[in-house]
Amino acid sequence: MASADDIRSTVSKYLDAVGGGTSADVAALYADDATLEDPVGTEPLVGREAIEKFYSALDAVQNKTELLSIRVAGNSAAFAFRVVTDTGEQTITIEPIDVMTFDDQARITSMRAFWSQDDISFG
Amino acid sequence: MASADDIRSTVSKYLDAVGGGTSADVAALYADDATLEDPVGTEPLVGREAIEKFYSALDAVQNKTELLSIRVAGNSAAFAFRVVTDTGEQTITIEPIDVMTFDDQARITSMRAFWSQDDISFG
Repeated sequence: MASADDIRSTVSKYLDAVGGGTSADVAALYADDATLEDPVGTEPLVGREAIEKFYSALDAVQNKTELLSIRVAGNSAAFAFRVVTDTGEQTITIEPIDVMTFDDQARITSMRAFWSQDDISFG
Repeated sequence: MASADDIRSTVSKYLDAVGGGTSADVAALYADDATLEDPVGTEPLVGREAIEKFYSALDAVQNKTELLSIRVAGNSAAFAFRVVTDTGEQTITIEPIDVMTFDDQARITSMRAFWSQDDISFG
């Protein structure tokens, strides 16, 4: 099982990649057969190719990310974070709580994002 | 599916019951066949009787609870909260992130608590 420190490190890399990286950078943190459910309640995506495509919107905008809190338990983590997206025309702020599981190499094996329209603000 | 407001209401009642209620008050918020995994990575408990027993430690101590943040998505919620327990000899503070699912009546059908020893402080 990945250590708590390794899990925290992957989450940190994840937020860095969502902030300043490409969709490929983000997808590289996922295991090959990982699943992604964002937001929770939607049909999960399966596999790194589908996951990279999901993050492709990142490649067109500037994001800033900030970890607000993280809890690690077993091979899993739950963490609250903020993503601020500057589209050039407006600033969109969203603060989800994500739950991830990790394999022995601390690659993400599943991601579930808890948020709704209520958690988005525009500035 | 339970509405987001109904889900938030159950979470609020849950924290009130963990704070000032009995183990029976807490268990009454769960569906009959609900599961409880606390902390995540341990063997889940199944059924309201086992769940009430889990919370029986509540009946001996004073707790104060505070909701820090909540995200609702589909039939699920993730929320960060603080529990301060006064044992008479010391104060124990723990700040988990819990994930719950809910049935159509907004009863809790599963609870998974993300925390570790790192998230406990003593005062």
